[in-house]
Amino acid sequence: MAKQEDKFKKVIAHAKEYGYIFGSSEIYDGLSAVYDYGQNGAELKKNIREYWWKSMVYMHQNIVGLDAAIFMHPTTWKASGHVDAFNDPLIDNKDSKKRYRADVLVEDFREKINQKIQKDITKAKKRFGDAFNEDEFRSTNPNVLRRQKEMDKITAELTRVQEENDLVGFKQLIEDLGIGCPESGSKNWTDVRQFNLMFGTKLGASAESATDLYLRPETAQGIFVNFLNVQKTGRMKIPFGIAQTGKAFRNEIVARQFIFRMREFEQMEMQFFVRPGEEMKWYEYWKETRLKWHLSLGLGEENYRFHDHDKLAHYANAAADIEFNFPFGFKELEGIHSRTDFDLKAHEEYSGKKLQFFDPELQESYVPYVVETSVGLDRMFLAVFSSALQEESLEDGSSRVVLKLPAVVAPVKAAILPLVKKDGLPEVAHKIVEDLKWKFNVIYDEKDAIGRRYRRQDANGTPLCITIDHDTLNDQTVTIRDRDTMEQKRVAIADLKTIISEKTDAEYWLK
Amino acid sequence: MAKQEDKFKKVIAHAKEYGYIFGSSEIYDGLSAVYDYGQNGAELKKNIREYWWKSMVYMHQNIVGLDAAIFMHPTTWKASGHVDAFNDPLIDNKDSKKRYRADVLVEDFREKINQKIQKDITKAKKRFGDAFNEDEFRSTNPNVLRRQKEMDKITAELTRVQEENDLVGFKQLIEDLGIGCPESGSKNWTDVRQFNLMFGTKLGASAESATDLYLRPETAQGIFVNFLNVQKTGRMKIPFGIAQTGKAFRNEIVARQFIFRMREFEQMEMQFFVRPGEEMKWYEYWKETRLKWHLSLGLGEENYRFHDHDKLAHYANAAADIEFNFPFGFKELEGIHSRTDFDLKAHEEYSGKKLQFFDPELQESYVPYVVETSVGLDRMFLAVFSSALQEESLEDGSSRVVLKLPAVVAPVKAAILPLVKKDGLPEVAHKIVEDLKWKFNVIYDEKDAIGRRYRRQDANGTPLCITIDHDTLNDQTVTIRDRDTMEQKRVAIADLKTIISEKTDAEYWLK
Repeated sequence: MAKQEDKFKKVIAHAKEYGYIFGSSEIYDGLSAVYDYGQNGAELKKNIREYWWKSMVYMHQNIVGLDAAIFMHPTTWKASGHVDAFNDPLIDNKDSKKRYRADVLVEDFREKINQKIQKDITKAKKRFGDAFNEDEFRSTNPNVLRRQKEMDKITAELTRVQEENDLVGFKQLIEDLGIGCPESGSKNWTDVRQFNLMFGTKLGASAESATDLYLRPETAQGIFVNFLNVQKTGRMKIPFGIAQTGKAFRNEIVARQFIFRMREFEQMEMQFFVRPGEEMKWYEYWKETRLKWHLSLGLGEENYRFHDHDKLAHYANAAADIEFNFPFGFKELEGIHSRTDFDLKAHEEYSGKKLQFFDPELQESYVPYVVETSVGLDRMFLAVFSSALQEESLEDGSSRVVLKLPAVVAPVKAAILPLVKKDGLPEVAHKIVEDLKWKFNVIYDEKDAIGRRYRRQDANGTPLCITIDHDTLNDQTVTIRDRDTMEQKRVAIADLKTIISEKTDAEYWLK
Repeated sequence: MAKQEDKFKKVIAHAKEYGYIFGSSEIYDGLSAVYDYGQNGAELKKNIREYWWKSMVYMHQNIVGLDAAIFMHPTTWKASGHVDAFNDPLIDNKDSKKRYRADVLVEDFREKINQKIQKDITKAKKRFGDAFNEDEFRSTNPNVLRRQKEMDKITAELTRVQEENDLVGFKQLIEDLGIGCPESGSKNWTDVRQFNLMFGTKLGASAESATDLYLRPETAQGIFVNFLNVQKTGRMKIPFGIAQTGKAFRNEIVARQFIFRMREFEQMEMQFFVRPGEEMKWYEYWKETRLKWHLSLGLGEENYRFHDHDKLAHYANAAADIEFNFPFGFKELEGIHSRTDFDLKAHEEYSGKKLQFFDPELQESYVPYVVETSVGLDRMFLAVFSSALQEESLEDGSSRVVLKLPAVVAPVKAAILPLVKKDGLPEVAHKIVEDLKWKFNVIYDEKDAIGRRYRRQDANGTPLCITIDHDTLNDQTVTIRDRDTMEQKRVAIADLKTIISEKTDAEYWLK
């Protein structure tokens, strides 16, 4: 755990030091759970977005894009259920004046019991050595059994109060468990109340005439309300998909873990419209296809796992997460949901407009079913960035910090480095920059000794360094150094475009 | 005027019909002055954004990107002056309950006088024919002279009440001119009051503890507050620039002209940090450079003009607009502003942090001056789209609707069309799609006769059509048709990538 925390701190520090992520409005001491992407972060984020868009829109003849506004008609959020049901249960401590999510208080309490079980297991393991059998221990040790029973009881009661929206029972649970304020220890609690997570604003100039708007809490609804517009003007036939990337906003009470859970974040969603009854086939198809996309980035198969939901949202008949091994453990990276016809039917009801597709093969109209893939762009960024950051011990006993970003999404593709600042080498280097910049984001660097510049580019995540030396003047070749292997090769200037392309083009990564 | 309006209506209708722009939340009867970009619009917008980014960030070694959040610390907007001075003067009619911008009421009134002058001129022109001299007529005709004097007086008083923020005088002016409510004619007005154009929202869970936030009304401040972060972590030396694209929000009272003035819109801004005293040199440089960028799209030199500001904003010592000939006349497309050190100094004052650059050549620290280029992405979209839409009479007496989008930003680069749906032609066409899709957004279409498909792609803005016919099976050549010239050529399948590249790559447009 300590090692994980340590790693996470390094990730955050490196992200700032190399211009990937800054706290928002830092000069004003920041804005909680909001972040700005710096010069390298802006490129990495843009490249991940583009890699997703390419794989979705350009690779599939039956998927098109959309770019709907953040502002939508307020009835949209009545229909989607967000006005009534997009809530967190909150509770305040009357003494410390601190506010908490009631469910998080209970979950943290339960987790402490779990920690005790883990401690018992670790102790027993030490004592019994190879002879230790965890399953047997769990099913026989009276301490563990008692604690497990206690945990199960808490889980059952928490599920009940949540499902029944029993706010009085929620408070009772907290009191029964004797949970105190994490800060002050006080058990003097207010009632539990529901807090809607949508940010509100007002359109228009005065209190009487203004319209209450929400900042969208998800991009999906922009796709649903435009379903018929796109289908008709794009002459789409089912099955087809609409893909979109864009900002969404949630007024999270407990926002934490760096860019993992932010109040302003970006989603990359695709809604795939299918025939009713065929949704499970497509659900399986998209689970597999999306996992393949993640694996294409080469962050390591062992860092992904599926988590199939037992408890389904009101709109879904099947749902799974692709979880990633973040610095703080396995957490949701992407969701694949079979949303049935819930959303389109709700919009039909609230708008009074038909949202149906006439299927020429079946010769009938129906409201399509929807299979959705939804990934957080910022979470993708964190997955890529945190797993890329490594400290390596080198053969000569020294070590280096290297950011092994997948070359296809790396901000800078190549650094062009004249060995020395004289003898015409900078001029040749600049000429190479001028030639390459049309196809690739490249940078020029002449400052410091070459070894130091290599280390800087390693830490910066630049996959290739191209060094111009005195031989270059005679034979038009340069040294190209690979960030990950540190191997150096002599290649012709004329071949650089092809070499960089084969290392960095989406074509070679997606295939 | 009628012709212009007619043209504008066609632009709006075509944008909807071909999946470029839909009204937001149309199924709920829309949200005023908010629009969604459809499947083709999303691509066109993305391509314009990318064309700008390339020309700014990748073409200039001393410009880097940034992606700051929409939410910022509220003090940001105190420092920038938006809390105190980003207002519109509003007035309500007590009888009709309609609300207006006081300045627009006065300007519309003045414009009516101008229309009368125009009418007199038109009449006189008709009467005198070739002998008519407009300048002479204006300086001698008593009616025109009287009206011009009246207009000048209105302009002077409007400027005064605006500059002095004299709200009582503002109302007096409206009453003195006898302006009535455009809807009801009633002259029963409320007082004029200032209305702040920023959208507000609340971060946090309760009234007591919530922080008042604003949706940013411009992206520039995200760059200013991150100036030192980027400069230091990116080791930038002055002069250097930071470029950013992103959403901004303004609660416009009178939002109109389609996507020209929206409540939610996207900016593409670059702040260029320079030595104090060198700002005019860079101001001229960026005026010229930005105009060149616009001209590179080939929409016609005659459609652009500079408008140098006589009246400067409080933060500027020079400012000019690049105006474009929209369907409703010449209007601002991009602004180039010499903002001095106003913003950085204001943020120093409000944050108590130094925002200075140590200049190694001068061996001194200073707050840099800023030259800014700011273009509306949605306005760029409208400029490109509206000037591209044309109706052409053909030699055979028929006509066609063609959307002559610059190929570099066109949503779909090529349509791949099998002449008939049999004989193995679709299979060859699909193979070409599979080969091209890695580099270009291409589509496949087999429906309807080939002539009809060509027309559809013309209206869709697709620069190239590639037709597979029976000869293709023998000689591996296809017909490639140019959208604008309608010329058809026979080319080898193996050459398609090069041909499409040379037509559509930014490299060939920016050079």
